[in-house]
Amino acid sequence: MTTRLRLSQCGLSGGKRARLHRILYQHGLRNGTALFLPYDQGLEHGPRDFFADPAAADPKYIIKLALEGGFNGIAIQIGLAEKFYWDYAGEVPLILKLNGKTDIPPDRRALSPLHASVEDAVRLGADAVGYTLYVGSPAQDVDCAQLHEVRRDAQRFGMPLIVWAYPRGEAIEDKGGKDSFYAVHYAARVASELGADVVKVNFPRPEKRASVPAPYTATFSGQEAMEAVVRAANRTLVLVSGGSKAGDDAMLAKAHESMAAGATGLIFGRNIWQREHDASLRLVEQLRDILAKFPTT
Amino acid sequence: MTTRLRLSQCGLSGGKRARLHRILYQHGLRNGTALFLPYDQGLEHGPRDFFADPAAADPKYIIKLALEGGFNGIAIQIGLAEKFYWDYAGEVPLILKLNGKTDIPPDRRALSPLHASVEDAVRLGADAVGYTLYVGSPAQDVDCAQLHEVRRDAQRFGMPLIVWAYPRGEAIEDKGGKDSFYAVHYAARVASELGADVVKVNFPRPEKRASVPAPYTATFSGQEAMEAVVRAANRTLVLVSGGSKAGDDAMLAKAHESMAAGATGLIFGRNIWQREHDASLRLVEQLRDILAKFPTT
Amino acid sequence: MTTRLRLSQCGLSGGKRARLHRILYQHGLRNGTALFLPYDQGLEHGPRDFFADPAAADPKYIIKLALEGGFNGIAIQIGLAEKFYWDYAGEVPLILKLNGKTDIPPDRRALSPLHASVEDAVRLGADAVGYTLYVGSPAQDVDCAQLHEVRRDAQRFGMPLIVWAYPRGEAIEDKGGKDSFYAVHYAARVASELGADVVKVNFPRPEKRASVPAPYTATFSGQEAMEAVVRAANRTLVLVSGGSKAGDDAMLAKAHESMAAGATGLIFGRNIWQREHDASLRLVEQLRDILAKFPTT
Amino acid sequence: MTTRLRLSQCGLSGGKRARLHRILYQHGLRNGTALFLPYDQGLEHGPRDFFADPAAADPKYIIKLALEGGFNGIAIQIGLAEKFYWDYAGEVPLILKLNGKTDIPPDRRALSPLHASVEDAVRLGADAVGYTLYVGSPAQDVDCAQLHEVRRDAQRFGMPLIVWAYPRGEAIEDKGGKDSFYAVHYAARVASELGADVVKVNFPRPEKRASVPAPYTATFSGQEAMEAVVRAANRTLVLVSGGSKAGDDAMLAKAHESMAAGATGLIFGRNIWQREHDASLRLVEQLRDILAKFPTT
Amino acid sequence: MTTRLRLSQCGLSGGKRARLHRILYQHGLRNGTALFLPYDQGLEHGPRDFFADPAAADPKYIIKLALEGGFNGIAIQIGLAEKFYWDYAGEVPLILKLNGKTDIPPDRRALSPLHASVEDAVRLGADAVGYTLYVGSPAQDVDCAQLHEVRRDAQRFGMPLIVWAYPRGEAIEDKGGKDSFYAVHYAARVASELGADVVKVNFPRPEKRASVPAPYTATFSGQEAMEAVVRAANRTLVLVSGGSKAGDDAMLAKAHESMAAGATGLIFGRNIWQREHDASLRLVEQLRDILAKFPTT
Repeated sequence: MTTRLRLSQCGLSGGKRARLHRILYQHGLRNGTALFLPYDQGLEHGPRDFFADPAAADPKYIIKLALEGGFNGIAIQIGLAEKFYWDYAGEVPLILKLNGKTDIPPDRRALSPLHASVEDAVRLGADAVGYTLYVGSPAQDVDCAQLHEVRRDAQRFGMPLIVWAYPRGEAIEDKGGKDSFYAVHYAARVASELGADVVKVNFPRPEKRASVPAPYTATFSGQEAMEAVVRAANRTLVLVSGGSKAGDDAMLAKAHESMAAGATGLIFGRNIWQREHDASLRLVEQLRDILAKFPTT
Repeated sequence: MTTRLRLSQCGLSGGKRARLHRILYQHGLRNGTALFLPYDQGLEHGPRDFFADPAAADPKYIIKLALEGGFNGIAIQIGLAEKFYWDYAGEVPLILKLNGKTDIPPDRRALSPLHASVEDAVRLGADAVGYTLYVGSPAQDVDCAQLHEVRRDAQRFGMPLIVWAYPRGEAIEDKGGKDSFYAVHYAARVASELGADVVKVNFPRPEKRASVPAPYTATFSGQEAMEAVVRAANRTLVLVSGGSKAGDDAMLAKAHESMAAGATGLIFGRNIWQREHDASLRLVEQLRDILAKFPTT
Repeated sequence: MTTRLRLSQCGLSGGKRARLHRILYQHGLRNGTALFLPYDQGLEHGPRDFFADPAAADPKYIIKLALEGGFNGIAIQIGLAEKFYWDYAGEVPLILKLNGKTDIPPDRRALSPLHASVEDAVRLGADAVGYTLYVGSPAQDVDCAQLHEVRRDAQRFGMPLIVWAYPRGEAIEDKGGKDSFYAVHYAARVASELGADVVKVNFPRPEKRASVPAPYTATFSGQEAMEAVVRAANRTLVLVSGGSKAGDDAMLAKAHESMAAGATGLIFGRNIWQREHDASLRLVEQLRDILAKFPTT
Repeated sequence: MTTRLRLSQCGLSGGKRARLHRILYQHGLRNGTALFLPYDQGLEHGPRDFFADPAAADPKYIIKLALEGGFNGIAIQIGLAEKFYWDYAGEVPLILKLNGKTDIPPDRRALSPLHASVEDAVRLGADAVGYTLYVGSPAQDVDCAQLHEVRRDAQRFGMPLIVWAYPRGEAIEDKGGKDSFYAVHYAARVASELGADVVKVNFPRPEKRASVPAPYTATFSGQEAMEAVVRAANRTLVLVSGGSKAGDDAMLAKAHESMAAGATGLIFGRNIWQREHDASLRLVEQLRDILAKFPTT
Repeated sequence: MTTRLRLSQCGLSGGKRARLHRILYQHGLRNGTALFLPYDQGLEHGPRDFFADPAAADPKYIIKLALEGGFNGIAIQIGLAEKFYWDYAGEVPLILKLNGKTDIPPDRRALSPLHASVEDAVRLGADAVGYTLYVGSPAQDVDCAQLHEVRRDAQRFGMPLIVWAYPRGEAIEDKGGKDSFYAVHYAARVASELGADVVKVNFPRPEKRASVPAPYTATFSGQEAMEAVVRAANRTLVLVSGGSKAGDDAMLAKAHESMAAGATGLIFGRNIWQREHDASLRLVEQLRDILAKFPTT
């Protein structure tokens, strides 16, 4: 049986532990699990993500949805944080996403530049910062230099650091693509080695075996792969991402599998808000039912 | 009916709100709308823009025109601000344009380097700073690093930040060009996400559908596109650009459509001063008539 | 009739005005005109420039020539300033040239790196600093970042900034070359927009019409072109460069034309010292006769 | 007979000597030799290194192994140090590895970016820092700039600097590869010249003579090559690396040869923990037997 | 007759003059000439330079040789200075070489990165710093930025700056190579213009006329070329380099020619220590006999 990681085991400074405690035990289900709402698609993909459900184009609508749904936090960029978080400051934890990029230029040398600092997060009352690391990108030198600066400042201010660990770039494409078990497994470990307090990963797809290195050419179940990813992250809390909108049953099964594998929580965006308001809340309820089964006390 | 954004809704700091209030309610029509005169074409295109109307080559003539026409501000580079704004300091608000470039090298990796700082703007008595962001350019990493620095200093000094959000670069060319609905829509959102207080956009041309991604291949009216752009900018005030000199009727129609869609104002340069002095003022009068119909009280 | 620009019109700070006043009214003809001796060819072209007249290889000889000829200033690099200006400190104004490069690598991506700072200029008792800007070069991003730093420090220390505005690089070559009217006209404007107090330009050659953009394909006299360049520089004082050694009559005619067009002075190097000592001084006398006809009182 | 280098001969500052004394005389065999356990393979190669022996994926297991085996130190990245060293702080010396990279992109322009600082090492109670220098890589300019910063800070804080001196990059491939006598010999000297206190090298393979420069095309025994490497390192302590897992007999012979040649110690990772727990400790015992024969008193 | 440059003529600050006086008048022949021993070949070429005479691989042997031979200084990198200079501190002047590189990657874009600072030199008790400038390299922008920083700090601390002025890179190869009269002549001038106090050059080879620019295609004797190089350096003291080991008679003739041409001294490495100990000292004696003939009193 998988034992879920406790905050007291992670070597956290006082400030980081206080802020993570606030997120995990004073919001959401208050049971040590987390459900986060990421809302940076307007930057990462552009407003085309909002065409089907135009209400979701409004950041105010989304923050309100996070409150209504009892989320543990909302992850947004500096511009939206300055303009919209003020209305709900303190009611739902803010994860200030520090870097991001458009999807206009091709991704073969992916790099996500910084738009805000840990000091901005402190000033805005955030409880964590988010950083996207493109593991394996040819631009990883610049990426790591940025992460180094963010990690150092997060340490200085006692601010939890959530790393979006995304395999990306031409070398990843040549070795089986960004969501292979190989790639996700490696990415989780990199985030842990480089100082993430929390790591966000995509659900690994072990059936993608073409071009991946051994031993990933063997057969693994999704559950086995997810458990390995959680172990690779060791004392780094794991959040599993929803990715692009998928069928609800598949998505709920994936969520359950992730929690059973030892993840601390879920971070679901388009799957939530790319539907009508009440449908969004009904889905959130189903996700909370899953999280309720995996308390860390 | 479109409701125009109020300053009190934008999460602005005291200093930013004070300066924007000065621009919007103590100059021009004093009704919350804005008419700006941009004058950086001597750098961006070179003095060839002034051949037809040589008086316009003289910055003093242009600043005087801004005063006579009751503009809400004039946007110029540091060199002209140092040399010419002194004569009219305080009479018309100064927007110090912080970056800019010549059009001599090709634009496929467009980047507009910084020539001045927010601190220069404070020293010169400016009421806002302007920054050109080339959304989608392969050089967006450097561009975003520059914007990050400007945004941070603008926050520190309470200086409003106006972002010229221009889609540009080889990837934009491959996806339908710089004035498609897709490109302008995305650019407005990016400026908002990255912390612009005000965003300057070109009027989107939804009829440009070749090579753009879905759903922009569908049919939209100019009015629909402009409204979507204003929504994408959410709590960021929108200024619509005149672009290169066009026929007056088309331009006035475009101006009316923009304001009806919820824009806060207009920023027209060549359309104004690429004609004889009194004709310039007559056109300004027509633009003011439009703005008068869209007060934000 | 052309009116020459006065220092009181240029929006200068006290320190910049004091130093420019010293250069223009306390040296040379003391009538507001200027004759400068540039001596950085040893770096820019190498010592081959001194073979025909070996005395000119000695910086001491050149500084003495500047004194004997009643020049308004001598422009040299940091190394020569440290070693040779000490002997004549205060007797002739020093313009410390802050950047420079060899002509060994090709010029298609021309950039002139910084070798000294405005603070060095203050320490050495200089009355101005010089900076070469390669307008239109693909390396203009780095170039502008350097100029930004120099402009900021020049502002801070009240040190006049003279920009050598040189069109250069592969895009300029493709559009008619570095001394077309188009290129020189644009370069003068760029220097003014970016904060030069004084701009050094080459005499434009409007007869070079191949590949230049409209309207520069039309016919202009040299005088018309020079007047346009002075207008493009607006409140930036204009110095006209001698360039490589030419026939004396052509050169004197060019000098007269420049002053008649409104330039503040001349900056002649090889034309002066690439001849025997007394011949140099005789030529200087002829140039001073021209300057005497164009006082700014 | 080879004389082993003493700490008193190395020109070390007080702080560096104190920390190296702690490592060499207060841990392990306490006889001036060293056995280090490097554990950064999770970053350098990814978690695939742990598949055969899954217990080794757990940093806690590894640190405990270092304690049980009587190692002189464990070398890990900042993330694992923050999360796991706390449990055993002071019980086994910490070498904080400051840079590292994934093996996902190709190695032809290898560079290992910094993830932590010497100041982090001081804060965590480390007794040394580790830095990977890719000797000969086309990216050596950036690499050397990083090392310069690390060396300076190590000097400032009295922190011993261990350089992983690894020949790497396309030019090394063209000259005989990364483990030729030529390459390892050169790398050891470079580390010494650039300020390493300790250098980690791979065992040179003098039989690799294809494409190497003279005089390395001559015949040398492994012992001769290793002795030359130790001499090239001069007053820099030498650690010999185990590299990828090899047969035990060959590895033990190599270890003995290294110590006989004058090395101070061994740094063995995968050879140790890519086997079952008790087998690991048995191998450690054999390595300690070798080290016991080469005391530096 | 050539007059040798005196320290009082060079515009030196007090600190620089004091340290150069110590080198030139309190060590060696104490007659204003200098004989330096450079020992960075272990970095620049690798330990293969020591195979023929293995004793020379030991920095201690070399420093002792400098003492026995009565050298005016020894030039070494930071690592060797930290480890070996301590034993002989003050007995022979230390020139800390601040940059350097391996010869593993090709030289077409040569750049020598910094490994130490002027502050390190002050801390170690050095009497000068050395910097290699690759004149004409496509990487000269970065090179000049490094030199700028070094020159500034050398000025601040009163530390003499010796520039190794080496023509290098693909453009130099295309224009006749690195030891043509053209290249060496230009390099000496560049060092002087950019602020070197002392310049180290290779002996020019005027017979290399293929592809060099005019007027270097004419016929010059070695003596004429060397005199021109000294004049190009003007108030910068000139050191002539021995380069790779040559025949003794040719080398001694070259040394005499250099001093007769006005050089201040010689900097000979491999020619000295690539022979047995007593033979080294005998050669030094011959060089001292030459220097004794050229005192600067």
